[in-house]
Amino acid sequence: MKILILGADGYLGWPSCLYFSQRGHEVVGVDNYFRRNAGKELDCKPLIQAPDLIQRANIWEEITGKNIKIHIGDITDYEFLLSIFKEFNPDAVVHYAEQPSAPYSMMSRDKAAFTVQNNLITTLNILYAVKEVNPDCHIIKLGTMGEYGTPNIDIEEGWLEIEHKGRKDKFLYPRQAGSLYHTTKVQDTDMLWFYVRTWNLRVTDLMQGPVYGLSTEETDLDPRLVPHFHYDEIFGTLLNRFIIQAVAGYPLTVYGKGNQTRGFLNLRDTMQCVYLSSTQPAEKGEIRIFNQMTESFSVNQLAEKVKKVGDKLGYNVKIESIENPRIEKEDHYYNVNYTGLLDLGLEPHFLTDEVLENIFVIADKHKSSINKDAFFRGISWK
Amino acid sequence: MKILILGADGYLGWPSCLYFSQRGHEVVGVDNYFRRNAGKELDCKPLIQAPDLIQRANIWEEITGKNIKIHIGDITDYEFLLSIFKEFNPDAVVHYAEQPSAPYSMMSRDKAAFTVQNNLITTLNILYAVKEVNPDCHIIKLGTMGEYGTPNIDIEEGWLEIEHKGRKDKFLYPRQAGSLYHTTKVQDTDMLWFYVRTWNLRVTDLMQGPVYGLSTEETDLDPRLVPHFHYDEIFGTLLNRFIIQAVAGYPLTVYGKGNQTRGFLNLRDTMQCVYLSSTQPAEKGEIRIFNQMTESFSVNQLAEKVKKVGDKLGYNVKIESIENPRIEKEDHYYNVNYTGLLDLGLEPHFLTDEVLENIFVIADKHKSSINKDAFFRGISWK
Repeated sequence: MKILILGADGYLGWPSCLYFSQRGHEVVGVDNYFRRNAGKELDCKPLIQAPDLIQRANIWEEITGKNIKIHIGDITDYEFLLSIFKEFNPDAVVHYAEQPSAPYSMMSRDKAAFTVQNNLITTLNILYAVKEVNPDCHIIKLGTMGEYGTPNIDIEEGWLEIEHKGRKDKFLYPRQAGSLYHTTKVQDTDMLWFYVRTWNLRVTDLMQGPVYGLSTEETDLDPRLVPHFHYDEIFGTLLNRFIIQAVAGYPLTVYGKGNQTRGFLNLRDTMQCVYLSSTQPAEKGEIRIFNQMTESFSVNQLAEKVKKVGDKLGYNVKIESIENPRIEKEDHYYNVNYTGLLDLGLEPHFLTDEVLENIFVIADKHKSSINKDAFFRGISWK
Repeated sequence: MKILILGADGYLGWPSCLYFSQRGHEVVGVDNYFRRNAGKELDCKPLIQAPDLIQRANIWEEITGKNIKIHIGDITDYEFLLSIFKEFNPDAVVHYAEQPSAPYSMMSRDKAAFTVQNNLITTLNILYAVKEVNPDCHIIKLGTMGEYGTPNIDIEEGWLEIEHKGRKDKFLYPRQAGSLYHTTKVQDTDMLWFYVRTWNLRVTDLMQGPVYGLSTEETDLDPRLVPHFHYDEIFGTLLNRFIIQAVAGYPLTVYGKGNQTRGFLNLRDTMQCVYLSSTQPAEKGEIRIFNQMTESFSVNQLAEKVKKVGDKLGYNVKIESIENPRIEKEDHYYNVNYTGLLDLGLEPHFLTDEVLENIFVIADKHKSSINKDAFFRGISWK
């Protein structure tokens, strides 16, 4: 299969390039280094500085003999994206090229506007390029479980049949997101669904929970293949941040009561989910939605798990509740259905103590480069 | 009241400026002349060429002694918009400044991207300016009945209580729009709702049906105060186009079967709805949604009404079904609830033969300037 990976330098994009390449697929990766540049601007670099994307692809080729072609550029520029589609004519495109941080999107008008423009125009451009070059090309889009928010009813897998005054219809599950970033993902889904039914395209929209972990089978082949692992308030995800806080001797920052519950998954499972989606594509005219998570945890449960493993490893972990800078429900119902990817063949890596220990061990090697100032700056939703 | 009208040069914007001004309110109007420029680019000018916005405001002042202050500029430029908010500090802002045409949004990638960027960034900028200058300022946003699409259940007024597996919650009514333009309106509503609940703002979102008519009490005071009245495929609304086709001796272009049903209202009622919303504002932390329409008609019903009145006036009106360039259901359920604005005091002007005759009479005076090439170019959804 010929697979185009947009956002190829990112936490998920780079390991995905390797995962597909390792399995014999032809991979082209594209990135504009947004995250590297934002990390410099906001003083929140990843734990381990990876070589640039072209260098990483060269290292991969050295080790495996497999080629990943890289383009550096911005896919909000339609002509740039179109030229790649025309040259490569992919069978599937994976869209990781969105501004992915909720706090970033809440920092200022300019960062909010950037998030809207980047996330919606990249998606629009992909839709147009697919239509123009090959309408059969399967679009795999990363959504987020955050699109659903925390409704008081069960979260179904993308769709909801509604009976109202004796009549019935089926709708996209009603969504109500918790940040501007998450709202752009809701908007993306609406845009994808409109063009799918208008142009008869095929789309898989993956509603992904927060991801944890810092290695996959492929990235473990050489230390220089490490994914970009963020632990800061802006680009770090919850569990990753807690582990680095524990290693650094910094209290785990629980926002408010800590009963906020979300669906999580291991980085290795993201690889599986995207791969399974690509090898078993959506039908023409279908937007197929999966809830991409393997387990639910509250913030407090994760803090306790990290403390337990951290204490065992000798870190003396403290947990501290701080005033919640976000506007979110701290006590809520949360029950999610997520059978679609299991039905495709996902074999989950659950969050065991051993999995946590392995992340601690890698993190500890890089302890000296942890920037404690990046853990919490209180970017406020207000 | 100090009222800021964005999109003040448009079909609805200009009569709104006059309506508020006539009733003693202080009005500032802003426009970037997008519609005038697009009309030139696409050879679809309005039926009657109005003086430019600054001139029209001068004419209004000549006639009534009332001042409307005009700014010409683009409110996607945040600093421009913010400077107006800081200088004027409005009590309410009416947002008509969106790219309003479904066919325009379907013409090309560039026009689609323009629609997304213009419609979402203008809305974002208004939200930020209100937050920064005066969070009590009431935002009145024009949505569209097209956000709902044509679901198989009753269309409620913005919200829907859903019972699922024995649990309940209330959501924004699930929406599924029929063009990219209409999809940006869905996206707008999601964005407004996010910031309303995060920043405790007050918003009224008016889900408006297609508007018809070309005069109000205020525009009738002088022929130079006429609103921009479009009858073309791109910017014209359905009933307005049918009347001008009838006057020009051109068959009424019914798309497909013509059973497509929508909610309509008179331009005079749009004035009332916006005015009533502004004098009885939404609460803090509330996004109040009204369905802004007074009657439902199918395309065929409107064609028959126009034919009946046109024939009586001696026009010999023909109706022609043409292949539908849009992707839409031609037979569907349609039952809308719209009591909110009636409860605020709306007194509807229904679509009587007399109302139609009055539009015919004005249109006939401008018969010689009708551009028949603009009626139908077949801008395709495919």
